[in-house]
Amino acid sequence: MPPMTVATHAFAELTAERGLLFGGDYNPEQWPRETWIEDIALMQRAGVNLVTVGVFSWAMIEPRPGAREWAWLDDVLDLLHAGGIAVDLATPTASPPPWLGVRFPEVLPVDADGVRLVAGSRNQFTPASRVYREHALAITRDLAERYRDHPAVRMWHIGNEFGQVDYGDEAAREFRLWLRERYGDIDGLNRAWGTAFWSQRYDDFAEILPPRRMPYLVNPTQSLDFRRYSSDQLRVVHRELREAIRATGAAQPITTNFMGFFAHVDYRSWADDVDVISDDQYPDPARPTAAAETALVQDLMRSLGHGRPWMLMEQAVSAVSWREHNLPRSAQSARRNSLQAVARGADAVCFFQWRQARAGAERFHSAMLPHAGADSDVFRGIVQQGRDLRALRAVAGQRIATDVAVLFDWSSWWAGEEPARPTTRLSTLEQVNRWYAVLWRRGISADVVGPRDSLGDYRVILVPHSYIIEPATADALAAAARAGAQVVIGAFSGVADENAQVIPGRSPVLLRELIGASGEEWAGLPDAPTPLTGAGVPAGATASILAERLRAEGAETLASFDAGDLAGRPAVTRHRVGDGAAWYLATVPDDAALAAIVNSVIDASGVVGAHGSAEPLPADLEAVRRGDVLFLLNHGDSPVELAVAEGLTDLLTGEQVPTVVAVGPGDVRALTERHPS
Amino acid sequence: MPPMTVATHAFAELTAERGLLFGGDYNPEQWPRETWIEDIALMQRAGVNLVTVGVFSWAMIEPRPGAREWAWLDDVLDLLHAGGIAVDLATPTASPPPWLGVRFPEVLPVDADGVRLVAGSRNQFTPASRVYREHALAITRDLAERYRDHPAVRMWHIGNEFGQVDYGDEAAREFRLWLRERYGDIDGLNRAWGTAFWSQRYDDFAEILPPRRMPYLVNPTQSLDFRRYSSDQLRVVHRELREAIRATGAAQPITTNFMGFFAHVDYRSWADDVDVISDDQYPDPARPTAAAETALVQDLMRSLGHGRPWMLMEQAVSAVSWREHNLPRSAQSARRNSLQAVARGADAVCFFQWRQARAGAERFHSAMLPHAGADSDVFRGIVQQGRDLRALRAVAGQRIATDVAVLFDWSSWWAGEEPARPTTRLSTLEQVNRWYAVLWRRGISADVVGPRDSLGDYRVILVPHSYIIEPATADALAAAARAGAQVVIGAFSGVADENAQVIPGRSPVLLRELIGASGEEWAGLPDAPTPLTGAGVPAGATASILAERLRAEGAETLASFDAGDLAGRPAVTRHRVGDGAAWYLATVPDDAALAAIVNSVIDASGVVGAHGSAEPLPADLEAVRRGDVLFLLNHGDSPVELAVAEGLTDLLTGEQVPTVVAVGPGDVRALTERHPS
Amino acid sequence: MPPMTVATHAFAELTAERGLLFGGDYNPEQWPRETWIEDIALMQRAGVNLVTVGVFSWAMIEPRPGAREWAWLDDVLDLLHAGGIAVDLATPTASPPPWLGVRFPEVLPVDADGVRLVAGSRNQFTPASRVYREHALAITRDLAERYRDHPAVRMWHIGNEFGQVDYGDEAAREFRLWLRERYGDIDGLNRAWGTAFWSQRYDDFAEILPPRRMPYLVNPTQSLDFRRYSSDQLRVVHRELREAIRATGAAQPITTNFMGFFAHVDYRSWADDVDVISDDQYPDPARPTAAAETALVQDLMRSLGHGRPWMLMEQAVSAVSWREHNLPRSAQSARRNSLQAVARGADAVCFFQWRQARAGAERFHSAMLPHAGADSDVFRGIVQQGRDLRALRAVAGQRIATDVAVLFDWSSWWAGEEPARPTTRLSTLEQVNRWYAVLWRRGISADVVGPRDSLGDYRVILVPHSYIIEPATADALAAAARAGAQVVIGAFSGVADENAQVIPGRSPVLLRELIGASGEEWAGLPDAPTPLTGAGVPAGATASILAERLRAEGAETLASFDAGDLAGRPAVTRHRVGDGAAWYLATVPDDAALAAIVNSVIDASGVVGAHGSAEPLPADLEAVRRGDVLFLLNHGDSPVELAVAEGLTDLLTGEQVPTVVAVGPGDVRALTERHPS
Repeated sequence: MPPMTVATHAFAELTAERGLLFGGDYNPEQWPRETWIEDIALMQRAGVNLVTVGVFSWAMIEPRPGAREWAWLDDVLDLLHAGGIAVDLATPTASPPPWLGVRFPEVLPVDADGVRLVAGSRNQFTPASRVYREHALAITRDLAERYRDHPAVRMWHIGNEFGQVDYGDEAAREFRLWLRERYGDIDGLNRAWGTAFWSQRYDDFAEILPPRRMPYLVNPTQSLDFRRYSSDQLRVVHRELREAIRATGAAQPITTNFMGFFAHVDYRSWADDVDVISDDQYPDPARPTAAAETALVQDLMRSLGHGRPWMLMEQAVSAVSWREHNLPRSAQSARRNSLQAVARGADAVCFFQWRQARAGAERFHSAMLPHAGADSDVFRGIVQQGRDLRALRAVAGQRIATDVAVLFDWSSWWAGEEPARPTTRLSTLEQVNRWYAVLWRRGISADVVGPRDSLGDYRVILVPHSYIIEPATADALAAAARAGAQVVIGAFSGVADENAQVIPGRSPVLLRELIGASGEEWAGLPDAPTPLTGAGVPAGATASILAERLRAEGAETLASFDAGDLAGRPAVTRHRVGDGAAWYLATVPDDAALAAIVNSVIDASGVVGAHGSAEPLPADLEAVRRGDVLFLLNHGDSPVELAVAEGLTDLLTGEQVPTVVAVGPGDVRALTERHPS
Repeated sequence: MPPMTVATHAFAELTAERGLLFGGDYNPEQWPRETWIEDIALMQRAGVNLVTVGVFSWAMIEPRPGAREWAWLDDVLDLLHAGGIAVDLATPTASPPPWLGVRFPEVLPVDADGVRLVAGSRNQFTPASRVYREHALAITRDLAERYRDHPAVRMWHIGNEFGQVDYGDEAAREFRLWLRERYGDIDGLNRAWGTAFWSQRYDDFAEILPPRRMPYLVNPTQSLDFRRYSSDQLRVVHRELREAIRATGAAQPITTNFMGFFAHVDYRSWADDVDVISDDQYPDPARPTAAAETALVQDLMRSLGHGRPWMLMEQAVSAVSWREHNLPRSAQSARRNSLQAVARGADAVCFFQWRQARAGAERFHSAMLPHAGADSDVFRGIVQQGRDLRALRAVAGQRIATDVAVLFDWSSWWAGEEPARPTTRLSTLEQVNRWYAVLWRRGISADVVGPRDSLGDYRVILVPHSYIIEPATADALAAAARAGAQVVIGAFSGVADENAQVIPGRSPVLLRELIGASGEEWAGLPDAPTPLTGAGVPAGATASILAERLRAEGAETLASFDAGDLAGRPAVTRHRVGDGAAWYLATVPDDAALAAIVNSVIDASGVVGAHGSAEPLPADLEAVRRGDVLFLLNHGDSPVELAVAEGLTDLLTGEQVPTVVAVGPGDVRALTERHPS
Repeated sequence: MPPMTVATHAFAELTAERGLLFGGDYNPEQWPRETWIEDIALMQRAGVNLVTVGVFSWAMIEPRPGAREWAWLDDVLDLLHAGGIAVDLATPTASPPPWLGVRFPEVLPVDADGVRLVAGSRNQFTPASRVYREHALAITRDLAERYRDHPAVRMWHIGNEFGQVDYGDEAAREFRLWLRERYGDIDGLNRAWGTAFWSQRYDDFAEILPPRRMPYLVNPTQSLDFRRYSSDQLRVVHRELREAIRATGAAQPITTNFMGFFAHVDYRSWADDVDVISDDQYPDPARPTAAAETALVQDLMRSLGHGRPWMLMEQAVSAVSWREHNLPRSAQSARRNSLQAVARGADAVCFFQWRQARAGAERFHSAMLPHAGADSDVFRGIVQQGRDLRALRAVAGQRIATDVAVLFDWSSWWAGEEPARPTTRLSTLEQVNRWYAVLWRRGISADVVGPRDSLGDYRVILVPHSYIIEPATADALAAAARAGAQVVIGAFSGVADENAQVIPGRSPVLLRELIGASGEEWAGLPDAPTPLTGAGVPAGATASILAERLRAEGAETLASFDAGDLAGRPAVTRHRVGDGAAWYLATVPDDAALAAIVNSVIDASGVVGAHGSAEPLPADLEAVRRGDVLFLLNHGDSPVELAVAEGLTDLLTGEQVPTVVAVGPGDVRALTERHPS
């Protein structure tokens, strides 16, 4: 864990001063000045105390090359400050003005088909472009210089949702530099990429291109490295903009908004570049599994921040508009989602955006202040949320403890889903979510750990699917098991090395001794589920997607295949190692079978839920303990009850609750022994 | 309504002289001269009296730059004239010869990906190209000069199915000029497009591009304006070709073939540029709803022509070939479809094409004379159709009256289906068709009106879905209701202004007073239909697709939502206003519920069907009255009966019919008090 | 049939010397020298006697322009020779090194969108490129010069899976030359392509382009000729590489690997360019019809080779990796598939590849020696296969006889599936496979003949679907019927001439007299199957996909349509002609009806199965007689029994079998009167 910096402290001071932060993106560019006045009055009514300003203001500040139009922004910041609203001031670098691409076409990204993407949407830049970076740096320097001491400015925000991918000539140049850095010489690259296959050997870095459209399947390591490079190239831009702000002497915390399990950026490598983790969360209200999936994302964000509070930087108060079909949230559901973030470690609850846009591609994206205005259910719900957050003020800065780790690594995710694999039906995220859901139903939070994180203190370590496992990680997993942990390895894990090359030998080669079993050949299972049998799975259990031919070498068999070519072979094994055990899954069990297995693991570990019990929670009830507050969130349509300790008070209502506490449909409880402040 | 021109009169004279027109596209280029002689003999046998010649003859007339090969065309026209067959002579401008694109690549259209489309198909030109336009004008001038006085030539035809869209540099230049014309200065454009959103502000028109491939969602107003421009750019080409013909002194009627509810051209803006409306109609025989959908298209065409007779310019006598799976029509079904057009105002029944092509991309598109030749069911059916049309000669020039209007506007359609909206499941055309089908089942025709058309005389005005409603239209709707009309506003209407910007306030802002209700936030409904309850809908009624949260403000509630977050809120309302009423739908009801609502509206209005009754027609029976002829078309597989007046004669059989007239499966009746001429 | 060449004899000598060949692709480039030593030891253990070397070694041999790195290859060949393993030495021309495309971008293929495909996969060349061809020739000459006398080298292999298609400027130039050669002058091309349609007339060959992205449907003859050209252009490259080897004096047999019914190469035109036919076969284990489909491909390969033994050059021992979902084969199933090839005429059973790759796009493609190593079921199965092939040594060189022909022609396939046809639901390959499956279930092999092959000796000639039938073929079919054959013409056959132009008249025009019937207008049938009735089909028979309106003109009607517009019209007819008969299908019957019709045809012909009986075989049992060996392959999961002659011995077990022989699930029998050698 990196040391707490001055800026990290500054964030803690901000929440100590203001309580939980509440607000959203504020885009005054879209409105006349009289609307700003109204906005601030309504923000005050709602209890808003932080807004993010300037994300899309490049074309307003620099309407033509070199211009600097600051007056409107001076005015906005002054008005907000006068209204008592703090500002998270954004570099306007996410979306350059059209003139930049017209004058310097090389700033425009090029896709894998060679098509140069134009203005008319947003984000039309490549992070590989020196011209883009010079212009972005220049405006960032001037912005920070001008506002570093403005009293409204309490945070800085770099760009927005970094995620651009570019296959053009600018990217080719930077990709080659990145590869030279990584591999030193071309022989190293040829070995790592396995270019002896299909006559792909490169004689010089100058011959290498991004994985543009090609006649057939791409070299998977080339593709993996291009993903790594693309993430790193964005990171370079992020870091130089951050440094430009710091170079002016600005001391406020700096952040940028992550997007959960986002496919194009390895946030673990970025996490220590921000002073506070912030995240945009848009779960689909149409997904029945959204609550547990959101909890996992929130646990990831807490983990990226080493347990420190994080910010929910963007969410939708009701519907979004970028899906094909967009369901709204009710005010109650929006409230519960905000409080879920607080329960899981957020010290800020923010929305995109304050006032719903009339024009543009997000005119139907809901906002705190909808088209209908303040006389609306949506705005009344926002006012209620402001009240709730003030009631929870004591939670700010509190932390969450857990004995459970879930391994997730971006490189492994990328490499494991490259084309030409046993089956495209295996999805890393789907498997991680399926495993996590079993924890969630038992009120257990998890740290989402990377392959280089310390594993020593966990009692349960889940590896739902990690295609790449490097030797150090394999060693750490074995050490943890010997020391008493329950280590569970899911299907198709430990297959490849850091270059996505399959490790030769009976699989999983590096974990073979740990699991006491070995297999050969991962391949798809037939469409009809394959029955499983054994004490470790319930009657009627099945497997699907893929399997390997496994042989027990010391492990006990908890379940076996019961049909097809694999009939009689082990499907789930456990190997007792030292004080712990290593569990192994040679296939993908159905939901009930997976739950039985993970529940057995939890029972073996002695870990209990936030409600202090090993009993499962009532259906749809989420329980999480932050500091001394037990949050209970009912995501279902029916009332539920739960036994709790005596003498607890609900911070949200101020009332003392009985020892069997009722949580109404959609409702939230925040129970503490303390009396509300 | 524009004044009747000389050319419009000339069309009426043509049908007065020849009766209902009957024929098709004739492409003698594909055949040797001896086949022409045979063709004319067979045309005479079938009663063909009009053919369209020259649509795809550019490469024959101008096989190399500047050449003019007229001899073959002279011969064809002379032969046709000698055979008594009139000619609709086409400018050959729809499909330039390959050499034009090879010598002047800038005439070739470029798609949104930047790919320049080549010859090998047809229509490889952009209407933005000055080079294309010069060449098209030159050959059109020479054609018209040569044949303006040819006695065979009784009409002119401009191009074919105008519809090209181009995203290339030629289009960019013309789009900018169009925008400059529309907005005057760049500030006006920035306001209209809402470019403050996402930092899209333009500093100069020169920075603007067509909506080519871009990183993310396009600015919806940019997209809307590009659609408007694309339609207008085609219109420019159409008008200049038309003017070139007139400039030679040619006085015959000029037309071009429309394609119903075609997505790329706003035909309402084009309608007064043609002397007679003509339309291509290819309903899919596999669609059970084809008959009512075709009726709506025919009502549209009649409406575009201000009630004057129109031409069915193209249809397929049996199967087409451009769908993935192409069902044929029987001779009886083809006959019924031709007579449907006549019943709904057509004075011409034409086909693509006379003789089926042996080669090329439409070798399996059916024709009046199929591959099999004259010894075929298809040709025998054509001979029968010729007889039928002669029997209906008295119908030529007759008109159709209605008290019902359906609002449909191309700009609203375009804007309402831009990406990033509450749901992609809402389709303007689908909703218009669903509403119209209720009228059709009651024997009621409708005028399909635009937002600037007079609404004063209608007793029922349906607005199934009009995303854009401008203030003048809102005022006209209110005035009509006050004067006694039943005005019905469907879901997601009146949301946006002419720039597709959402109108702020409780929705529908401009109609709020009229409907006596207001809502907030349109968003998707869950996949499972949402139950509705109330006196205005049948038991078991449901809603789907999308809904808003509505509040009655004076209106009575006819139906409410009965589940979910919206439970208890109004779904269908009626507000009595002056002598009429305004009905409002805050969602999309199922078919039965929609029928109940629209039927209540019709009952309230007192409007009756063509059969003189408010009773629904037997299933699958279409009834329409043109002039003094009551057409009854049985689109089903079972015989039906209908009560009619005494003393009617069927023009098709010449027989007098009883007061309960039988219409056999697939058959047509044309009943009149007159005796057949 | 071409004369047996020296090289063809050399292949027979090789199998006479070594027995059935057994091995696979061997890519030592991917491994260090110590692995090569291990490889050879394991090959010996498995009985491998032939490996293909060098397919992907261009970048190893020529790591930079003009280099020649032979030492490693000398070493590999010497080691293999010392190990007793023969080598099929490949020109490394299938996959050029990246530097070739970087230095000479014109060698890179361009797709129909104009995108130039880059290195990173394989095969990034266009066969139209002179630069590619010069480089490929140079390395091929040097390779052959160096190794023509190497004792390990017993065969040569040209490239790999030829199949590149290019739409770029290089292709445009060669396509024009090809067209000039075919048509002589531009008028000939205009007639053949029917360019009078849609104004496509070309004034000069220079105006012609490949069928790149265009505004609408392509000219089908342009597309057909581009497919023919593309196949021929690859053939030019293949032939010049072959000639370069021969020019060095190398006398070994030369081959290249085909890919069954591959869409981009007309193998019939290539067949006589190779000394021995070889084929890659990757049936999908998930397809229940895979066994019969594979049998058809194997019959095709035998037929292309004029009955001579062929090589199974590539197959997967277990799973492939390029499908979305890849099922493995069990060792038993892999064995059965290998023996199926031997039963149907293969003298070589080879795999891709010897040792499974760790890196690259085929890291999960199974191999003889899997990632798990020799301690694996897969390798143990390979060892068993080696034993089996040695037991079958006597089969080498033996031939297969049949009285049945199935017509299949690449040009017809291509032309029949061009866009804009009656229905995209009709697939040539699907129909050929459906018809062949009826033969297969009766133990009957077939010659897969082309339109110019002699038909005189067959007792049954099936034409499941041949869109193009030229006059000479029509005459040959009629002559065969008159001479006593049962000729069966499937739906939508004989529609077009060699230019894919529809033949005018009642269809099938050239076969009308033969079949004693004629029709008009092929078009789609409704989605719901249409019932058939009549003595020629079983009760409950149906038709689907498409039909024509047929009229009997002398033929007897075996089945008629029983609903819809076609009710009462003939669907299946038979016309007795001379000593034989012509059967005709005016639609696509369901499986049971098709089986009834084809079974009636077989019964009428007196042809019996390999088991010497007209009785159908037990379900899933394949029977084929090669030389004096009766192969019985049980593709099902249940044991089956079959009556056979007395005194037969199973070559695989060495045991004599009773007269009712049992074949276990998945097992194979190879029965002969001989005693095993």
